[in-house]
Amino acid sequence: MRIAVIGAGAMGVLYGGYMSRQHDVLLVDANRAKMDVIREKGVTIHEPDGSVTLCRPQAAADTRGMEPADLVILFTKSMVSDAALSANRSLIGPDTVLMTLQNGSGHEETLLKYADRAHVVIGTTQHNSAVLDFGEIRHGGSGKTCIGCLDGDSQRLAPIAQAFTACGLETVCDDRVQRLIWDKLFTNASASVLTGVLQVPMGFIVRDAHAWALCETLVREAAAVAAGDGFAFDAEEKLAQVRAVCERSPEGLTSIYADLRDGRRTEVDTISGSVVRASRRNGVPAPTHEAMIALVHAMEAKAAL
Amino acid sequence: MRIAVIGAGAMGVLYGGYMSRQHDVLLVDANRAKMDVIREKGVTIHEPDGSVTLCRPQAAADTRGMEPADLVILFTKSMVSDAALSANRSLIGPDTVLMTLQNGSGHEETLLKYADRAHVVIGTTQHNSAVLDFGEIRHGGSGKTCIGCLDGDSQRLAPIAQAFTACGLETVCDDRVQRLIWDKLFTNASASVLTGVLQVPMGFIVRDAHAWALCETLVREAAAVAAGDGFAFDAEEKLAQVRAVCERSPEGLTSIYADLRDGRRTEVDTISGSVVRASRRNGVPAPTHEAMIALVHAMEAKAAL
Repeated sequence: MRIAVIGAGAMGVLYGGYMSRQHDVLLVDANRAKMDVIREKGVTIHEPDGSVTLCRPQAAADTRGMEPADLVILFTKSMVSDAALSANRSLIGPDTVLMTLQNGSGHEETLLKYADRAHVVIGTTQHNSAVLDFGEIRHGGSGKTCIGCLDGDSQRLAPIAQAFTACGLETVCDDRVQRLIWDKLFTNASASVLTGVLQVPMGFIVRDAHAWALCETLVREAAAVAAGDGFAFDAEEKLAQVRAVCERSPEGLTSIYADLRDGRRTEVDTISGSVVRASRRNGVPAPTHEAMIALVHAMEAKAAL
Repeated sequence: MRIAVIGAGAMGVLYGGYMSRQHDVLLVDANRAKMDVIREKGVTIHEPDGSVTLCRPQAAADTRGMEPADLVILFTKSMVSDAALSANRSLIGPDTVLMTLQNGSGHEETLLKYADRAHVVIGTTQHNSAVLDFGEIRHGGSGKTCIGCLDGDSQRLAPIAQAFTACGLETVCDDRVQRLIWDKLFTNASASVLTGVLQVPMGFIVRDAHAWALCETLVREAAAVAAGDGFAFDAEEKLAQVRAVCERSPEGLTSIYADLRDGRRTEVDTISGSVVRASRRNGVPAPTHEAMIALVHAMEAKAAL
């Protein structure tokens, strides 16, 4: 399979690296210096068990004039999705499958500007990783990747799922992928966003009664909004899961924490924004999520002063 | 008049100092070292025009066994009101007028544990000042002091108002003092609280679109809650006033900003807490104020780590 992975951040390097072990993979990123390093040194993945995986995908900053790929996986930050797809549209032909594994819901809206519904694939991954350097990442944890079609039976994606799995990325096809994306939003839009706003590690959210009360409000609001979108979740169960995630990694630092600490733009519009966009669509209020988004954007602006 | 001012913070020093020019004033504060300094050096007030006012009120950390005063003014932080009144109850006799000019609403509930309704006076002040050192303050700005009774005609407080005014603290009696306290809450519970949470000066709140959007939400929620309590305010007018306050002092740092920066407990339960308590009383939702309180308390806890 000829695969292009757009966005050579932590997750793009992970997927691009792993897939390159059996496929013709092109990593694409607008950062030329980063692409030069990856072309020269390959990608280095520090695995959770201490081992190191070295892979050699191809790398390009400019894909104009290239042939379409069989599969394009979008792994940029959500705010640059549109620009990244536009810049690399020569990779997307009429038969190209265009996939997003980005955090949050609603990315299909952008993808549908570049491919028809039958060729758009959405998904969610339980892998996580962090950038150490250009082309060098720490693979923090593994888990399942779930992919699905926008319409019809997702089992037609089985060959893609098998290709991922064969490269060490366990992947299943699931028609409930929208629900799974919601499922993942609960932790990201509650505890993770709070670690950013408060600039604290994960454990603080469960240790501090006020932080946890706010986290609980965010989970309950999100559950009500999800229900309004037709996805029923048990808020108590979600709360227990969010609590477990925080307790499992008390010293864990989220990407939104690091982005705000380091003065970068965050993905809050993807994460909390998913809840608020659904809230506006279905009329179930999400005032606390709206407040978190405003705070995070104000913090981004403060850092940029 | 024999006057005791409990709490020798920025506002207690201001009122105690000014009143001591014509009255027998005792400044009371649990901090013995502070009282020693004030006894030795008096209080120093750096006025907005650059001049310096020196006054010599008496000072005591322990008032047990003392005679009741004619007037006791409470100027502690709200969370220590009860403890401060209890420790200094010998100053409060059956004829003592017990007055609060603390920020926020609802302080009368605590005062009524130490005096009957006829002797409790509530009020609000437009003065502001900041502590520079023990007994030394910067008087940031002046304005009217409004005082009122809990029941009946507030004009019976005219002699007290005249005594204040004669000492340079322009004071009026007003039966609408509860409304005036609400009025003051709008700025404190919106822009001021946000400067604390975001750790920014006042001007940032109007300069940053996201901060201002959140400020606007806080003002609108507060106006709805105030209406639920029987006080109708025009939200647009309040927004214009809050904006003007921020624009007038763009580099201004609020006390909640400084408290959080320096790891002290804040007065958020007095300020935003006034809105939330009214919200719970009258059923008008204030979710964004609740979120701000939780964030501020979590920030206090983080600073204490």
